[in-house]
Amino acid sequence: MQTIQQRFKVEYNYAVFFTENLFDTKNPLLQDFFNEYTEQGFQRKALVIVDEGFAQYHSDLSNQIHSYFAASVSHIQLAPEIINVPGGEACKNDPALFDSLVEAVDTYGIDRHSFIIAIGGGAVLDLVGYAAAVSHRGIKLIRIPTTVLSQNDSGVGVKNSINFRGKKNFLGTFAPPVAVFNDLTFLRTLDDRDWRGGVSEAIKVALIKDTSFFDWIETNTTAIVNRDEKAMAYLIHRCAEMHTDHIAGGDPFEFGSSRPLDFGHWAAHKLEFLTGFQVRHGEAVAIGIALDCVYANKIGQLADEDLSRILDVLGRLGFDLFHPKLSENDKINLRNGLNEFREHLGGRLTIMLLEKIGKGIEVHELDADIIAQSVDYLEGTKIIHAL
Amino acid sequence: MQTIQQRFKVEYNYAVFFTENLFDTKNPLLQDFFNEYTEQGFQRKALVIVDEGFAQYHSDLSNQIHSYFAASVSHIQLAPEIINVPGGEACKNDPALFDSLVEAVDTYGIDRHSFIIAIGGGAVLDLVGYAAAVSHRGIKLIRIPTTVLSQNDSGVGVKNSINFRGKKNFLGTFAPPVAVFNDLTFLRTLDDRDWRGGVSEAIKVALIKDTSFFDWIETNTTAIVNRDEKAMAYLIHRCAEMHTDHIAGGDPFEFGSSRPLDFGHWAAHKLEFLTGFQVRHGEAVAIGIALDCVYANKIGQLADEDLSRILDVLGRLGFDLFHPKLSENDKINLRNGLNEFREHLGGRLTIMLLEKIGKGIEVHELDADIIAQSVDYLEGTKIIHAL
Repeated sequence: MQTIQQRFKVEYNYAVFFTENLFDTKNPLLQDFFNEYTEQGFQRKALVIVDEGFAQYHSDLSNQIHSYFAASVSHIQLAPEIINVPGGEACKNDPALFDSLVEAVDTYGIDRHSFIIAIGGGAVLDLVGYAAAVSHRGIKLIRIPTTVLSQNDSGVGVKNSINFRGKKNFLGTFAPPVAVFNDLTFLRTLDDRDWRGGVSEAIKVALIKDTSFFDWIETNTTAIVNRDEKAMAYLIHRCAEMHTDHIAGGDPFEFGSSRPLDFGHWAAHKLEFLTGFQVRHGEAVAIGIALDCVYANKIGQLADEDLSRILDVLGRLGFDLFHPKLSENDKINLRNGLNEFREHLGGRLTIMLLEKIGKGIEVHELDADIIAQSVDYLEGTKIIHAL
Repeated sequence: MQTIQQRFKVEYNYAVFFTENLFDTKNPLLQDFFNEYTEQGFQRKALVIVDEGFAQYHSDLSNQIHSYFAASVSHIQLAPEIINVPGGEACKNDPALFDSLVEAVDTYGIDRHSFIIAIGGGAVLDLVGYAAAVSHRGIKLIRIPTTVLSQNDSGVGVKNSINFRGKKNFLGTFAPPVAVFNDLTFLRTLDDRDWRGGVSEAIKVALIKDTSFFDWIETNTTAIVNRDEKAMAYLIHRCAEMHTDHIAGGDPFEFGSSRPLDFGHWAAHKLEFLTGFQVRHGEAVAIGIALDCVYANKIGQLADEDLSRILDVLGRLGFDLFHPKLSENDKINLRNGLNEFREHLGGRLTIMLLEKIGKGIEVHELDADIIAQSVDYLEGTKIIHAL
């Protein structure tokens, strides 16, 4: 019998909107979005899930959302309960939390043509996104990221995940949202660590792809540190744009093993784990970038001047460039992260290093001794703001 | 800030192979397939998971697989353990079974570039497919279906699922396999119910799309009942071909709410549930087809002669056309299935009915009284072989 060759393409299409005061009834953005979903015979619903860490600073949020839907989106039936979930990495470790979200999908009759609206930081978006992706084989997900990191990076991308028995992101899918709404005003209640944290992802993407964006960040470090919203709005938009362009232009669902956007991430993932997530993702990425830039410099790939500019920008933004856990156990703990990174990516180890500012290049091995020397170098820079 | 419009396509591509004695070292098919995966720097692995219901009739299977890999696929590292899981619907109800498969992925270091090979009936393929799809955001899945139903229908498609707290297929994804291997010799150990069961999916697709295929089935009922392998091989190939064509030609990941391939399925799903899965999926589909054909005839849409031919073919193949659970509680239990079907599809109720043999047409409502009359009609046909 002749072999059947199956072949098809699936198209994805979503907008990342930038706005302020999203749930103000005078803001028509969300209303306009839902007005595209008015077919006869459908009763679409929406279930809203909010990061507790965000909700505590926005005590009126639940009322605002109910009022907005009543006034402007009355054709979509809002589930009566707005569900709060704990924020931060911990929420991805708790299978009962995942189960409770799936249970809510059932309780409120959220079907494949209804919406789940996730409001929160990257961890909550990951958890809710995973629950949405696997319930009924995929409910329409709207992401409303509330941190710099999620607005410029994870929240605009195509992944979700939870941890499994302590293994980070072990369970997850590639599942694009139907829309992302980035509200600048939501960033006002961030503490300085989370305001700064997401900037490292912008530096990352600038370093591997866009010299002029790095120049801009370098020029604007003071404005960013001083919480200038206009500067931050530009930084987030440019970073989100480069992130989405990269996804669309390459291998969206990562069938290959190259992952350029993971520049600086192999050490970052390990450091987050080694510190029990006390060092947050963006902070760990800053250290990971610093480490891999020192490494690239030590093997003669990255010029002294470029290295100096990179470390200077990270330092002036307030990032630590070293953490004692990097050195612990004669750096063996850190170096184990390299193999774990390979296992998670699958296939061959592929690490992005810099050739110069604005241009990355992939390598397939790192030397353990030079990693150790790079850690020592960072320790010597004494750029540690608060341990 | 300007809205970012993200848009991309993801391409999927897999072969459905037809063979005999797949794990005989003289059969190069599997070897040829894996020879496409020989890149430098990769150490791909394979984890094999087998349906116990199949394994009990193929006691040498584990040895055969180990021998085949040792002789012909030595560049892929076979996990030392071949895992058996219980077959049938029960395996999709047990979260611990899902967890144990994810645990095995971790234990044996199965990464995104390695393979999970699922051997079994539709329920096992669903469970293993789901575990593969969400582990590391998707491990390459090879399906080796061992029933008529899975070789001609579910096993060649793009879905997977498990049940959640008794809700059928509540959790799942759309995740195409990297290959499907249909081995005709694996069907020899099926009992008559499972040999017959999958034929109802072939009748389904013939009725809505291909008159000449229905004619062929009608002509070959005796050969099929007599377990003629050549006839069955043709039936499976043609049904699988129509199934994969339908997926590629339409809406592979079902973003819309039309599901023509669910012809006969609304009542089938409910009947499976009402009988605690004592009535198997293919058997339930045969009754569901009969019910919807009688309905279409009663509303003047399907000619008497066509209805008669359809019921005759189903009856001659040995399918029951009625089950007492259809009538229970004054048919209210059955009719509830209609709303559950709508909720599962999401959006608007869409039911495929026949206009004539070879041509389906979608409707958006069914009349409760006419459903009841159709059930009574089926009860009156007395085509009940064994209750």
